[in-house]
Amino acid sequence: MKIQKLIECVPNFSEGRRKSVINKITNAAKKIKGVKVLDSEWNADHNRSLMTLVGEPEKVYKAVWEMIKVAVKQIDMRTHKGEHPRIGAVDVVPFVPVSGVTINECVKLAERLGKQVAKELKIPVFLYEAAATSPDRINLAEVRKGEFEGMVKEMRKPDFGPAKMHPTAGAMVIGARKYLVAYNVNLDTGDVQVAKDISNVIREKNGGLPGIKALGFAVDGKAQISMNLVDFEKTNMDEVYRAIEAEAVKRGVGIYNSEIYGMVPLESLVRMTKTSLKAVNFKSEQVLETRIYE
Amino acid sequence: MKIQKLIECVPNFSEGRRKSVINKITNAAKKIKGVKVLDSEWNADHNRSLMTLVGEPEKVYKAVWEMIKVAVKQIDMRTHKGEHPRIGAVDVVPFVPVSGVTINECVKLAERLGKQVAKELKIPVFLYEAAATSPDRINLAEVRKGEFEGMVKEMRKPDFGPAKMHPTAGAMVIGARKYLVAYNVNLDTGDVQVAKDISNVIREKNGGLPGIKALGFAVDGKAQISMNLVDFEKTNMDEVYRAIEAEAVKRGVGIYNSEIYGMVPLESLVRMTKTSLKAVNFKSEQVLETRIYE
Repeated sequence: MKIQKLIECVPNFSEGRRKSVINKITNAAKKIKGVKVLDSEWNADHNRSLMTLVGEPEKVYKAVWEMIKVAVKQIDMRTHKGEHPRIGAVDVVPFVPVSGVTINECVKLAERLGKQVAKELKIPVFLYEAAATSPDRINLAEVRKGEFEGMVKEMRKPDFGPAKMHPTAGAMVIGARKYLVAYNVNLDTGDVQVAKDISNVIREKNGGLPGIKALGFAVDGKAQISMNLVDFEKTNMDEVYRAIEAEAVKRGVGIYNSEIYGMVPLESLVRMTKTSLKAVNFKSEQVLETRIYE
Repeated sequence: MKIQKLIECVPNFSEGRRKSVINKITNAAKKIKGVKVLDSEWNADHNRSLMTLVGEPEKVYKAVWEMIKVAVKQIDMRTHKGEHPRIGAVDVVPFVPVSGVTINECVKLAERLGKQVAKELKIPVFLYEAAATSPDRINLAEVRKGEFEGMVKEMRKPDFGPAKMHPTAGAMVIGARKYLVAYNVNLDTGDVQVAKDISNVIREKNGGLPGIKALGFAVDGKAQISMNLVDFEKTNMDEVYRAIEAEAVKRGVGIYNSEIYGMVPLESLVRMTKTSLKAVNFKSEQVLETRIYE
Protein backbone atom coordinates (compact mmCIF):
# COMPACT_ATOMS: atom_id res chain seq x y z
CA MET A 1 0.00 0.00 0.00
CA LYS A 2 1.35 3.34 -1.03
CA ILE A 3 0.19 6.61 0.46
CA GLN A 4 0.58 9.56 -1.86
CA LYS A 5 3.63 11.68 -1.08
CA LEU A 6 2.50 15.12 0.00
CA ILE A 7 4.28 18.25 1.09
CA GLU A 8 3.16 21.71 2.03
CA CYS A 9 4.93 24.92 1.11
CA VAL A 10 4.10 28.32 2.59
CA PRO A 11 5.97 31.02 0.64
CA ASN A 12 5.83 34.54 2.13
CA PHE A 13 5.89 37.46 -0.30
CA SER A 14 6.59 41.14 0.43
CA GLU A 15 3.35 42.29 -1.13
CA GLY A 16 0.18 42.78 0.88
CA ARG A 17 -1.43 45.77 -0.85
CA ARG A 18 -1.61 45.38 -4.62
CA LYS A 19 -4.25 42.69 -5.07
CA SER A 20 -3.40 42.34 -8.77
CA VAL A 21 0.17 41.34 -7.93
CA ILE A 22 -1.00 38.89 -5.27
CA ASN A 23 -3.35 37.34 -7.82
CA LYS A 24 -0.59 37.04 -10.39
CA ILE A 25 1.58 35.20 -7.86
CA THR A 26 -1.27 32.89 -6.82
CA ASN A 27 -2.24 32.18 -10.42
CA ALA A 28 1.31 31.11 -11.24
CA ALA A 29 0.85 28.25 -8.75
CA LYS A 30 -2.68 27.40 -9.82
CA LYS A 31 -1.41 26.68 -13.33
CA ILE A 32 0.44 23.62 -12.05
CA LYS A 33 -1.87 20.61 -12.15
CA GLY A 34 -2.06 18.63 -8.93
CA VAL A 35 -1.09 21.54 -6.70
CA LYS A 36 -3.76 22.98 -4.42
CA VAL A 37 -3.57 26.54 -3.15
CA LEU A 38 -5.28 25.85 0.15
CA ASP A 39 -5.01 29.29 1.57
CA SER A 40 -3.96 32.76 0.55
CA GLU A 41 -3.64 35.53 3.12
CA TRP A 42 -2.44 39.11 2.88
CA ASN A 43 -2.12 42.04 5.23
CA ALA A 44 -1.80 45.64 4.07
CA ASP A 45 -0.12 46.89 7.26
CA HIS A 46 2.45 44.14 7.07
CA ASN A 47 2.50 44.60 3.28
CA ARG A 48 2.97 40.88 3.11
CA SER A 49 1.13 37.83 1.78
CA LEU A 50 1.46 34.11 2.25
CA MET A 51 0.08 31.20 0.28
CA THR A 52 -0.32 27.62 1.42
CA LEU A 53 0.35 25.08 -1.32
CA VAL A 54 -0.09 21.33 -1.00
CA GLY A 55 0.67 18.53 -3.43
CA GLU A 56 3.30 16.06 -4.53
CA PRO A 57 6.83 17.31 -3.90
CA GLU A 58 7.87 17.84 -7.51
CA LYS A 59 4.66 19.64 -8.39
CA VAL A 60 4.82 21.92 -5.37
CA TYR A 61 8.45 22.66 -6.20
CA LYS A 62 7.48 23.67 -9.72
CA ALA A 63 4.56 25.80 -8.50
CA VAL A 64 6.73 27.67 -6.00
CA TRP A 65 9.38 28.29 -8.61
CA GLU A 66 6.76 29.82 -10.92
CA MET A 67 5.48 32.02 -8.07
CA ILE A 68 8.99 33.18 -7.23
CA LYS A 69 9.66 34.28 -10.80
CA VAL A 70 6.46 36.35 -10.85
CA ALA A 71 7.09 37.90 -7.43
CA VAL A 72 10.67 38.85 -8.23
CA LYS A 73 9.48 40.61 -11.38
CA GLN A 74 6.65 42.47 -9.61
CA ILE A 75 8.08 43.51 -6.24
CA ASP A 76 10.70 46.21 -5.73
CA MET A 77 12.17 46.14 -2.24
CA ARG A 78 13.68 49.61 -2.63
CA THR A 79 10.21 51.10 -2.23
CA HIS A 80 8.67 48.39 0.01
CA LYS A 81 7.35 49.51 3.40
CA GLY A 82 5.60 47.28 5.92
CA GLU A 83 5.46 46.44 9.60
CA HIS A 84 6.64 42.87 9.25
CA PRO A 85 10.38 42.10 9.15
CA ARG A 86 11.52 41.05 5.67
CA ILE A 87 14.71 40.52 3.74
CA GLY A 88 13.47 40.21 0.16
CA ALA A 89 10.63 40.20 -2.37
CA VAL A 90 10.18 36.49 -1.74
CA ASP A 91 10.95 36.57 1.94
CA VAL A 92 10.68 33.02 3.26
CA VAL A 93 9.99 29.66 1.59
CA PRO A 94 9.58 26.68 3.95
CA PHE A 95 8.98 23.15 2.66
CA VAL A 96 6.97 20.99 5.09
CA PRO A 97 6.42 17.21 5.04
CA VAL A 98 2.75 16.17 5.23
CA SER A 99 2.49 12.52 4.23
CA GLY A 100 4.96 9.85 3.15
CA VAL A 101 7.82 12.39 2.97
CA THR A 102 10.72 12.88 5.39
CA ILE A 103 12.05 16.20 6.59
CA ASN A 104 15.26 15.26 4.77
CA GLU A 105 13.47 15.15 1.44
CA CYS A 106 12.20 18.65 2.19
CA VAL A 107 15.74 19.79 3.01
CA LYS A 108 16.83 18.50 -0.40
CA LEU A 109 14.04 20.46 -2.10
CA ALA A 110 15.10 23.61 -0.23
CA GLU A 111 18.71 23.16 -1.33
CA ARG A 112 17.68 22.55 -4.93
CA LEU A 113 15.42 25.59 -4.99
CA GLY A 114 18.16 27.67 -3.35
CA LYS A 115 20.62 26.73 -6.07
CA GLN A 116 18.13 27.43 -8.84
CA VAL A 117 17.18 30.83 -7.39
CA ALA A 118 20.85 31.75 -7.03
CA LYS A 119 21.79 30.58 -10.49
CA GLU A 120 18.86 31.76 -12.58
CA LEU A 121 17.75 34.85 -10.66
CA LYS A 122 21.10 35.92 -9.14
CA ILE A 123 19.49 36.29 -5.73
CA PRO A 124 21.47 35.35 -2.58
CA VAL A 125 19.82 32.51 -0.65
CA PHE A 126 20.06 31.70 3.05
CA LEU A 127 19.01 28.22 4.20
CA TYR A 128 17.18 28.06 7.55
CA GLU A 129 15.55 25.67 10.06
CA ALA A 130 16.17 22.00 9.15
CA ALA A 131 18.10 23.12 6.04
CA ALA A 132 20.41 25.48 7.96
CA THR A 133 24.13 25.06 7.35
CA SER A 134 25.17 26.42 10.74
CA PRO A 135 23.49 26.72 14.16
CA ASP A 136 23.20 30.51 13.96
CA ARG A 137 21.12 30.19 10.80
CA ILE A 138 18.43 27.88 12.17
CA ASN A 139 16.30 30.70 13.56
CA LEU A 140 14.52 32.85 10.97
CA ALA A 141 14.78 36.06 13.01
CA GLU A 142 18.55 35.68 13.18
CA VAL A 143 18.86 34.98 9.46
CA ARG A 144 16.74 38.04 8.69
CA LYS A 145 18.61 40.35 11.09
CA GLY A 146 19.13 43.83 9.61
CA GLU A 147 16.35 43.18 7.09
CA PHE A 148 16.54 44.36 3.48
CA GLU A 149 17.95 47.80 4.21
CA GLY A 150 20.55 46.61 6.69
CA MET A 151 21.77 43.80 4.46
CA VAL A 152 22.16 46.17 1.50
CA LYS A 153 24.69 48.04 3.65
CA GLU A 154 26.31 45.04 5.29
CA MET A 155 25.84 41.67 3.67
CA ARG A 156 26.48 38.27 5.24
CA LYS A 157 27.76 35.41 3.09
CA PRO A 158 24.75 33.48 1.74
CA ASP A 159 24.54 29.71 1.25
CA PHE A 160 24.02 30.10 -2.47
CA GLY A 161 24.41 32.97 -4.92
CA PRO A 162 26.20 36.30 -4.88
CA ALA A 163 27.39 37.81 -1.56
CA LYS A 164 25.49 40.93 -2.55
CA MET A 165 21.80 41.78 -2.28
CA HIS A 166 19.77 41.67 -5.49
CA PRO A 167 18.95 45.35 -6.24
CA THR A 168 15.14 44.90 -6.27
CA ALA A 169 14.53 41.41 -4.83
CA GLY A 170 17.02 41.49 -1.93
CA ALA A 171 17.72 38.02 -0.52
CA MET A 172 15.63 34.90 0.06
CA VAL A 173 15.36 32.54 3.04
CA ILE A 174 14.56 28.96 2.02
CA GLY A 175 14.29 25.96 4.27
CA ALA A 176 12.46 22.97 5.63
CA ARG A 177 10.55 22.54 8.84
CA LYS A 178 8.10 20.08 10.33
CA TYR A 179 4.36 20.57 10.17
CA LEU A 180 3.14 23.01 12.78
CA VAL A 181 -0.08 22.08 14.59
CA ALA A 182 -1.90 25.00 16.22
CA TYR A 183 -3.75 23.63 19.23
CA ASN A 184 -5.50 25.39 22.12
CA VAL A 185 -6.81 23.94 25.38
CA ASN A 186 -9.40 25.91 27.35
CA LEU A 187 -9.63 25.36 31.10
CA ASP A 188 -12.86 25.46 33.06
CA THR A 189 -11.65 28.50 34.95
CA GLY A 190 -11.46 32.17 34.07
CA ASP A 191 -8.21 32.53 36.03
CA VAL A 192 -5.63 33.23 33.34
CA GLN A 193 -2.81 32.70 35.83
CA VAL A 194 -3.56 28.97 35.85
CA ALA A 195 -3.12 28.86 32.06
CA LYS A 196 0.12 30.83 32.33
CA ASP A 197 1.42 28.52 35.07
CA ILE A 198 0.61 25.36 33.11
CA SER A 199 2.13 26.86 29.96
CA ASN A 200 5.31 27.46 31.94
CA VAL A 201 5.43 23.82 32.98
CA ILE A 202 4.68 22.19 29.62
CA ARG A 203 6.67 24.33 27.18
CA GLU A 204 9.87 22.81 25.83
CA LYS A 205 11.95 25.89 26.59
CA ASN A 206 11.37 25.38 30.31
CA GLY A 207 12.19 21.68 30.17
CA GLY A 208 8.63 20.57 29.43
CA LEU A 209 7.44 18.54 26.49
CA PRO A 210 9.54 18.39 23.29
CA GLY A 211 8.21 20.55 20.46
CA ILE A 212 5.68 22.40 22.61
CA LYS A 213 5.43 26.18 22.53
CA ALA A 214 2.75 27.44 24.91
CA LEU A 215 1.31 30.71 26.18
CA GLY A 216 -1.52 31.44 28.60
CA PHE A 217 -4.32 33.79 27.60
CA ALA A 218 -7.82 34.76 28.68
CA VAL A 219 -10.25 34.01 25.85
CA ASP A 220 -14.04 34.35 26.15
CA GLY A 221 -13.86 34.12 29.92
CA LYS A 222 -11.78 30.95 29.89
CA ALA A 223 -8.11 30.52 30.68
CA GLN A 224 -6.59 29.26 27.46
CA ILE A 225 -3.32 27.48 26.83
CA SER A 226 -2.48 28.42 23.26
CA MET A 227 0.08 26.15 21.67
CA ASN A 228 2.15 25.35 18.66
CA LEU A 229 3.16 21.72 18.33
CA VAL A 230 6.25 22.07 16.17
CA ASP A 231 6.94 18.32 16.01
CA PHE A 232 3.86 16.14 16.51
CA GLU A 233 6.02 13.04 16.15
CA LYS A 234 7.66 14.01 19.44
CA THR A 235 4.60 15.32 21.27
CA ASN A 236 1.16 14.92 19.77
CA MET A 237 -2.18 16.49 20.72
CA ASP A 238 -3.17 13.64 23.02
CA GLU A 239 0.13 13.72 24.89
CA VAL A 240 0.00 17.45 25.52
CA TYR A 241 -3.71 17.26 26.43
CA ARG A 242 -3.03 14.58 29.07
CA ALA A 243 -0.08 16.59 30.45
CA ILE A 244 -2.27 19.69 30.74
CA GLU A 245 -5.05 17.63 32.30
CA ALA A 246 -2.67 16.33 34.98
CA GLU A 247 -1.39 19.84 35.73
CA ALA A 248 -4.94 21.21 35.80
CA VAL A 249 -6.06 18.57 38.30
CA LYS A 250 -3.17 19.56 40.60
CA ARG A 251 -4.54 23.10 40.54
CA GLY A 252 -8.11 22.01 41.15
CA VAL A 253 -9.42 22.79 37.66
CA GLY A 254 -10.45 20.73 34.64
CA ILE A 255 -10.39 21.03 30.87
CA TYR A 256 -13.38 22.82 29.36
CA ASN A 257 -12.62 21.93 25.73
CA SER A 258 -9.88 22.15 23.12
CA GLU A 259 -9.59 23.36 19.56
CA ILE A 260 -7.47 22.14 16.71
CA TYR A 261 -6.85 25.25 14.68
CA GLY A 262 -6.63 24.99 10.89
CA MET A 263 -5.51 21.86 9.13
CA VAL A 264 -3.57 18.85 10.34
CA PRO A 265 -1.96 15.92 8.55
CA LEU A 266 -3.69 12.55 8.89
CA GLU A 267 -0.52 11.27 10.53
CA SER A 268 -1.08 13.62 13.47
CA LEU A 269 -4.45 11.93 14.13
CA VAL A 270 -2.91 8.49 13.75
CA ARG A 271 -0.23 9.37 16.32
CA MET A 272 -2.73 10.72 18.80
CA THR A 273 -4.89 7.61 18.34
CA LYS A 274 -1.87 5.44 19.13
CA THR A 275 -1.11 7.19 22.40
CA SER A 276 -4.68 7.95 23.46
CA LEU A 277 -5.79 4.32 23.05
CA LYS A 278 -2.39 2.66 23.62
CA ALA A 279 -3.05 1.31 20.11
CA VAL A 280 0.63 0.80 19.49
CA ASN A 281 0.38 -0.90 16.11
CA PHE A 282 -2.14 1.41 14.48
CA LYS A 283 -1.00 2.77 11.10
CA SER A 284 -2.30 5.37 8.64
CA GLU A 285 -2.64 2.57 6.06
CA GLN A 286 -5.57 1.33 8.18
CA VAL A 287 -7.53 4.44 7.34
CA LEU A 288 -9.81 3.31 4.55
CA GLU A 289 -9.66 6.53 2.57
CA THR A 290 -5.91 6.19 2.08
CA ARG A 291 -6.52 3.01 0.09
CA ILE A 292 -8.75 4.63 -2.45
CA TYR A 293 -6.58 7.56 -3.38
CA GLU A 294 -3.52 5.56 -4.43
CA MET B 1 -14.73 21.72 0.32
CA LYS B 2 -16.09 18.45 -0.84
CA ILE B 3 -14.98 15.09 0.54
CA GLN B 4 -15.29 12.29 -1.97
CA LYS B 5 -18.36 10.14 -1.40
CA LEU B 6 -17.27 6.64 -0.53
CA ILE B 7 -19.09 3.45 0.30
CA GLU B 8 -18.02 -0.08 1.02
CA CYS B 9 -19.78 -3.20 -0.20
CA VAL B 10 -18.99 -6.71 1.04
CA PRO B 11 -20.82 -9.23 -1.16
CA ASN B 12 -20.75 -12.86 0.06
CA PHE B 13 -20.74 -15.59 -2.59
CA SER B 14 -21.48 -19.30 -2.15
CA GLU B 15 -18.20 -20.37 -3.72
CA GLY B 16 -15.07 -21.05 -1.69
CA ARG B 17 -13.45 -23.88 -3.60
CA ARG B 18 -13.16 -23.21 -7.32
CA LYS B 19 -10.47 -20.52 -7.50
CA SER B 20 -11.25 -19.89 -11.18
CA VAL B 21 -14.83 -18.92 -10.37
CA ILE B 22 -13.72 -16.68 -7.49
CA ASN B 23 -11.29 -14.98 -9.85
CA LYS B 24 -13.99 -14.44 -12.46
CA ILE B 25 -16.21 -12.79 -9.85
CA THR B 26 -13.39 -10.59 -8.56
CA ASN B 27 -12.33 -9.61 -12.06
CA ALA B 28 -15.84 -8.46 -12.90
CA ALA B 29 -15.43 -5.81 -10.18
CA LYS B 30 -11.87 -4.89 -11.08
CA LYS B 31 -13.04 -3.90 -14.56
CA ILE B 32 -14.93 -0.94 -13.12
CA LYS B 33 -12.59 2.04 -12.93
CA GLY B 34 -12.48 3.77 -9.57
CA VAL B 35 -13.53 0.72 -7.58
CA LYS B 36 -10.93 -0.89 -5.32
CA VAL B 37 -11.16 -4.54 -4.35
CA LEU B 38 -9.53 -4.11 -0.94
CA ASP B 39 -9.86 -7.65 0.20
CA SER B 40 -10.90 -11.02 -1.13
CA GLU B 41 -11.30 -13.99 1.22
CA TRP B 42 -12.50 -17.52 0.67
CA ASN B 43 -12.89 -20.62 2.77
CA ALA B 44 -13.19 -24.12 1.34
CA ASP B 45 -14.96 -25.60 4.39
CA HIS B 46 -17.51 -22.82 4.34
CA ASN B 47 -17.48 -23.00 0.53
CA ARG B 48 -17.93 -19.27 0.62
CA SER B 49 -16.04 -16.14 -0.41
CA LEU B 50 -16.36 -12.48 0.33
CA MET B 51 -14.92 -9.44 -1.36
CA THR B 52 -14.54 -5.94 0.06
CA LEU B 53 -15.12 -3.20 -2.51
CA VAL B 54 -14.67 0.51 -1.89
CA GLY B 55 -15.36 3.49 -4.13
CA GLU B 56 -17.94 6.04 -5.12
CA PRO B 57 -21.51 4.77 -4.68
CA GLU B 58 -22.45 4.52 -8.36
CA LYS B 59 -19.22 2.77 -9.28
CA VAL B 60 -19.49 0.27 -6.45
CA TYR B 61 -23.09 -0.40 -7.42
CA LYS B 62 -22.03 -1.12 -10.97
CA ALA B 63 -19.16 -3.36 -9.85
CA VAL B 64 -21.40 -5.41 -7.54
CA TRP B 65 -23.99 -5.81 -10.26
CA GLU B 66 -21.31 -7.17 -12.61
CA MET B 67 -20.12 -9.59 -9.91
CA ILE B 68 -23.65 -10.79 -9.24
CA LYS B 69 -24.23 -11.61 -12.92
CA VAL B 70 -21.04 -13.69 -13.05
CA ALA B 71 -21.76 -15.49 -9.77
CA VAL B 72 -25.34 -16.36 -10.75
CA LYS B 73 -24.07 -17.87 -13.97
CA GLN B 74 -21.27 -19.88 -12.29
CA ILE B 75 -22.82 -21.15 -9.05
CA ASP B 76 -25.45 -23.87 -8.79
CA MET B 77 -27.03 -24.05 -5.36
CA ARG B 78 -28.52 -27.51 -6.06
CA THR B 79 -25.06 -29.03 -5.68
CA HIS B 80 -23.60 -26.51 -3.21
CA LYS B 81 -22.35 -27.89 0.13
CA GLY B 82 -20.67 -25.87 2.86
CA GLU B 83 -20.62 -25.31 6.62
CA HIS B 84 -21.75 -21.71 6.51
CA PRO B 85 -25.48 -20.91 6.38
CA ARG B 86 -26.55 -19.60 2.95
CA ILE B 87 -29.68 -18.88 0.99
CA GLY B 88 -28.34 -18.31 -2.52
CA ALA B 89 -25.46 -18.12 -4.99
CA VAL B 90 -25.00 -14.50 -4.06
CA ASP B 91 -25.87 -14.83 -0.43
CA VAL B 92 -25.62 -11.39 1.19
CA VAL B 93 -24.86 -7.93 -0.20
CA PRO B 94 -24.50 -5.13 2.39
CA PHE B 95 -23.84 -1.52 1.39
CA VAL B 96 -21.90 0.44 4.02
CA PRO B 97 -21.33 4.22 4.25
CA VAL B 98 -17.67 5.22 4.62
CA SER B 99 -17.36 8.93 3.89
CA GLY B 100 -19.80 11.68 2.93
CA VAL B 101 -22.66 9.19 2.50
CA THR B 102 -25.62 8.54 4.81
CA ILE B 103 -27.00 5.14 5.74
CA ASN B 104 -30.13 6.23 3.90
CA GLU B 105 -28.27 6.58 0.62
CA CYS B 106 -27.04 3.03 1.15
CA VAL B 107 -30.60 1.84 1.79
CA LYS B 108 -31.58 3.40 -1.54
CA LEU B 109 -28.77 1.54 -3.31
CA ALA B 110 -29.89 -1.72 -1.70
CA GLU B 111 -33.47 -1.18 -2.85
CA ARG B 112 -32.36 -0.30 -6.37
CA LEU B 113 -30.11 -3.34 -6.60
CA GLY B 114 -32.89 -5.52 -5.19
CA LYS B 115 -35.28 -4.37 -7.90
CA GLN B 116 -32.71 -4.88 -10.65
CA VAL B 117 -31.82 -8.38 -9.43
CA ALA B 118 -35.50 -9.30 -9.24
CA LYS B 119 -36.35 -7.86 -12.63
CA GLU B 120 -33.37 -8.91 -14.73
CA LEU B 121 -32.33 -12.15 -13.02
CA LYS B 122 -35.72 -13.32 -11.68
CA ILE B 123 -34.20 -13.94 -8.27
CA PRO B 124 -36.25 -13.21 -5.09
CA VAL B 125 -34.64 -10.54 -2.92
CA PHE B 126 -34.97 -10.00 0.84
CA LEU B 127 -33.95 -6.63 2.27
CA TYR B 128 -32.19 -6.72 5.67
CA GLU B 129 -30.63 -4.53 8.39
CA ALA B 130 -31.20 -0.81 7.74
CA ALA B 131 -33.06 -1.67 4.51
CA ALA B 132 -35.42 -4.18 6.20
CA THR B 133 -39.14 -3.69 5.51
CA SER B 134 -40.26 -5.29 8.77
CA PRO B 135 -38.67 -5.86 12.19
CA ASP B 136 -38.38 -9.62 11.71
CA ARG B 137 -36.22 -9.06 8.65
CA ILE B 138 -33.56 -6.89 10.27
CA ASN B 139 -31.49 -9.82 11.50
CA LEU B 140 -29.64 -11.77 8.80
CA ALA B 141 -29.96 -15.14 10.58
CA GLU B 142 -33.74 -14.74 10.68
CA VAL B 143 -33.95 -13.77 7.01
CA ARG B 144 -31.82 -16.75 6.05
CA LYS B 145 -33.75 -19.23 8.23
CA GLY B 146 -34.26 -22.58 6.46
CA GLU B 147 -31.42 -21.80 4.08
CA PHE B 148 -31.52 -22.68 0.39
CA GLU B 149 -32.95 -26.16 0.80
CA GLY B 150 -35.62 -25.16 3.30
CA MET B 151 -36.76 -22.18 1.26
CA VAL B 152 -37.10 -24.29 -1.88
CA LYS B 153 -39.67 -26.33 0.06
CA GLU B 154 -41.31 -23.46 1.89
CA MET B 155 -40.82 -19.96 0.53
CA ARG B 156 -41.47 -16.70 2.35
CA LYS B 157 -42.69 -13.68 0.40
CA PRO B 158 -39.64 -11.67 -0.73
CA ASP B 159 -39.41 -7.86 -0.94
CA PHE B 160 -38.78 -7.99 -4.67
CA GLY B 161 -39.11 -10.66 -7.34
CA PRO B 162 -40.91 -13.97 -7.57
CA ALA B 163 -42.21 -15.70 -4.42
CA LYS B 164 -40.31 -18.76 -5.58
CA MET B 165 -36.64 -19.66 -5.29
CA HIS B 166 -34.52 -19.31 -8.43
CA PRO B 167 -33.68 -22.91 -9.44
CA THR B 168 -29.87 -22.49 -9.35
CA ALA B 169 -29.29 -19.13 -7.63
CA GLY B 170 -31.83 -19.39 -4.80
CA ALA B 171 -32.56 -16.04 -3.16
CA MET B 172 -30.49 -12.98 -2.27
CA VAL B 173 -30.27 -10.85 0.88
CA ILE B 174 -29.43 -7.22 0.15
CA GLY B 175 -29.21 -4.40 2.66
CA ALA B 176 -27.39 -1.53 4.28
CA ARG B 177 -25.58 -1.35 7.57
CA LYS B 178 -23.17 0.98 9.29
CA TYR B 179 -19.44 0.48 9.20
CA LEU B 180 -18.29 -2.11 11.69
CA VAL B 181 -15.11 -1.31 13.65
CA ALA B 182 -13.33 -4.31 15.15
CA TYR B 183 -11.55 -3.15 18.29
CA ASN B 184 -9.88 -5.08 21.11
CA VAL B 185 -8.67 -3.85 24.48
CA ASN B 186 -6.12 -5.93 26.40
CA LEU B 187 -5.99 -5.61 30.19
CA ASP B 188 -2.81 -5.83 32.22
CA THR B 189 -4.07 -8.98 33.89
CA GLY B 190 -4.24 -12.60 32.80
CA ASP B 191 -7.53 -13.06 34.65
CA VAL B 192 -10.05 -13.61 31.86
CA GLN B 193 -12.94 -13.21 34.29
CA VAL B 194 -12.17 -9.48 34.55
CA ALA B 195 -12.53 -9.16 30.75
CA LYS B 196 -15.78 -11.13 30.84
CA ASP B 197 -17.14 -8.98 33.69
CA ILE B 198 -16.27 -5.72 31.94
CA SER B 199 -17.73 -7.03 28.66
CA ASN B 200 -20.96 -7.73 30.53
CA VAL B 201 -21.09 -4.16 31.77
CA ILE B 202 -20.25 -2.33 28.53
CA ARG B 203 -22.18 -4.29 25.91
CA GLU B 204 -25.34 -2.68 24.57
CA LYS B 205 -27.45 -5.81 25.09
CA ASN B 206 -26.96 -5.53 28.85
CA GLY B 207 -27.79 -1.84 28.91
CA GLY B 208 -24.21 -0.71 28.35
CA LEU B 209 -22.93 1.51 25.55
CA PRO B 210 -24.95 1.86 22.32
CA GLY B 211 -23.55 -0.14 19.40
CA ILE B 212 -21.07 -2.12 21.50
CA LYS B 213 -20.82 -5.89 21.20
CA ALA B 214 -18.22 -7.30 23.57
CA LEU B 215 -16.81 -10.65 24.66
CA GLY B 216 -14.05 -11.51 27.11
CA PHE B 217 -11.21 -13.82 26.04
CA ALA B 218 -7.75 -14.83 27.16
CA VAL B 219 -5.24 -13.93 24.43
CA ASP B 220 -1.45 -14.29 24.81
CA GLY B 221 -1.72 -14.29 28.59
CA LYS B 222 -3.82 -11.13 28.71
CA ALA B 223 -7.51 -10.74 29.43
CA GLN B 224 -8.95 -9.29 26.24
CA ILE B 225 -12.19 -7.46 25.63
CA SER B 226 -12.92 -8.18 21.97
CA MET B 227 -15.46 -5.81 20.47
CA ASN B 228 -17.45 -4.82 17.45
CA LEU B 229 -18.45 -1.17 17.34
CA VAL B 230 -21.47 -1.38 15.06
CA ASP B 231 -22.15 2.37 15.12
CA PHE B 232 -19.10 4.49 15.84
CA GLU B 233 -21.23 7.62 15.62
CA LYS B 234 -22.96 6.45 18.79
CA THR B 235 -19.96 5.03 20.62
CA ASN B 236 -16.47 5.52 19.24
CA MET B 237 -13.17 3.89 20.17
CA ASP B 238 -12.22 6.58 22.66
CA GLU B 239 -15.57 6.40 24.44
CA VAL B 240 -15.47 2.64 24.85
CA TYR B 241 -11.80 2.76 25.86
CA ARG B 242 -12.55 5.27 28.64
CA ALA B 243 -15.51 3.19 29.81
CA ILE B 244 -13.34 0.09 29.97
CA GLU B 245 -10.59 2.02 31.73
CA ALA B 246 -13.05 3.18 34.41
CA GLU B 247 -14.36 -0.37 34.91
CA ALA B 248 -10.81 -1.74 35.01
CA VAL B 249 -9.74 0.75 37.68
CA LYS B 250 -12.69 -0.37 39.84
CA ARG B 251 -11.31 -3.91 39.59
CA GLY B 252 -7.75 -2.87 40.37
CA VAL B 253 -6.37 -3.46 36.88
CA GLY B 254 -5.26 -1.22 34.03
CA ILE B 255 -5.22 -1.27 30.24
CA TYR B 256 -2.20 -2.97 28.71
CA ASN B 257 -2.85 -1.86 25.13
CA SER B 258 -5.52 -1.92 22.44
CA GLU B 259 -5.73 -2.90 18.80
CA ILE B 260 -7.78 -1.50 15.97
CA TYR B 261 -8.35 -4.49 13.72
CA GLY B 262 -8.46 -4.00 9.97
CA MET B 263 -9.54 -0.77 8.37
CA VAL B 264 -11.50 2.16 9.72
CA PRO B 265 -13.05 5.22 8.06
CA LEU B 266 -11.34 8.55 8.67
CA GLU B 267 -14.56 9.73 10.30
CA SER B 268 -14.08 7.19 13.11
CA LEU B 269 -10.73 8.83 13.96
CA VAL B 270 -12.27 12.28 13.75
CA ARG B 271 -15.00 11.26 16.18
CA MET B 272 -12.58 9.76 18.65
CA THR B 273 -10.40 12.87 18.43
CA LYS B 274 -13.43 15.00 19.27
CA THR B 275 -14.28 13.06 22.40
CA SER B 276 -10.74 12.22 23.52
CA LEU B 277 -9.61 15.86 23.35
CA LYS B 278 -13.02 17.49 23.93
CA ALA B 279 -12.27 19.06 20.54
CA VAL B 280 -15.95 19.61 19.87
CA ASN B 281 -15.61 21.53 16.61
CA PHE B 282 -13.05 19.31 14.90
CA LYS B 283 -14.09 18.16 11.40
CA SER B 284 -12.73 15.73 8.83
CA GLU B 285 -12.33 18.67 6.44
CA GLN B 286 -9.47 19.79 8.70
CA VAL B 287 -7.47 16.73 7.72
CA LEU B 288 -5.12 18.04 5.07
CA GLU B 289 -5.20 14.94 2.88
CA THR B 290 -8.94 15.31 2.31
CA ARG B 291 -8.28 18.62 0.53
CA ILE B 292 -5.96 17.15 -2.03
CA TYR B 293 -8.07 14.27 -3.18
CA GLU B 294 -11.08 16.28 -4.23
